[in-house]
Amino acid sequence: MNREEKYMYAALGYANQAASLGEVPVGALIVRGEEIISFGYNLREAGRNGLYHAEMMAIDSACRTLGSWRLSGCELYVTLEPCPMCAGAAINTRISRVIFGAYDKKAGSCGSLLNLLDVKYNHRPRYLGGVLEKQCGEALRAFFKELRGGAKLPLGNFAVKSEE
Amino acid sequence: MNREEKYMYAALGYANQAASLGEVPVGALIVRGEEIISFGYNLREAGRNGLYHAEMMAIDSACRTLGSWRLSGCELYVTLEPCPMCAGAAINTRISRVIFGAYDKKAGSCGSLLNLLDVKYNHRPRYLGGVLEKQCGEALRAFFKELRGGAKLPLGNFAVKSEE
Repeated sequence: MNREEKYMYAALGYANQAASLGEVPVGALIVRGEEIISFGYNLREAGRNGLYHAEMMAIDSACRTLGSWRLSGCELYVTLEPCPMCAGAAINTRISRVIFGAYDKKAGSCGSLLNLLDVKYNHRPRYLGGVLEKQCGEALRAFFKELRGGAKLPLGNFAVKSEE
Repeated sequence: MNREEKYMYAALGYANQAASLGEVPVGALIVRGEEIISFGYNLREAGRNGLYHAEMMAIDSACRTLGSWRLSGCELYVTLEPCPMCAGAAINTRISRVIFGAYDKKAGSCGSLLNLLDVKYNHRPRYLGGVLEKQCGEALRAFFKELRGGAKLPLGNFAVKSEE
């Protein structure tokens, strides 16, 4: 297992946490050197907030932890190709490198629909896509298969609990 | 004064609030019908967080206020052309229309460097740029002129206070 796979497996662990809450399973983490600075997972539905993508949760947490808006020298790992918001957040925070798993044909903005990481903004993170692509994609497929099958997802219970 | 100018002047008011804290003056608000649902202003330096753009603060606040990640039927007003992160956030939250003031040649992603609002994501907000362009641009120019002049900006005091 190479370095990228090592951290992508960790990101998959956070994606599983999202799935356990009934959220589309996407997980992310931020590494500096060999230290995991922060992590995040998709919480859009439970959090009722369109900004709560895995990458945003991880970036927000990293800024708080490091006390800076600059995440230079940090790598962002995420199980799904970033959307424009999250790719833009990586650019804005000067993240050095973006590593993602599965490609996203619908909203992916790091190679699929377009590539924001190649646009001449004042910072361009390096990037690598397709790391553990099969495993990252399978986590998403399994989630949506269960959803279509009408299986009771934890979200129902979660939502009820949050209103108690 | 037309409707767009009416709300852009309000956004300029929030931009001034950012300037008074030593932040690059960008202000934003979210309107539904004729109600201002939320507002925000740039707080990147004082907040030490690269996600704290004016639009993100306004969108985050609107999601909390409305209790939903969907901001359908809402308009986003902002004094400066959105960057990719903020344009992406408007797309993700299904904002109906984006109205901005000054164009941003360095990071603007709604017409300047590229136009994310014209990309075939699963939602495409309508948009209008250049509303009160002169006034919105002047607020930024005045701020940077003062900065270059070495005038004491409130940020110093603010930073000290935050550590007391």
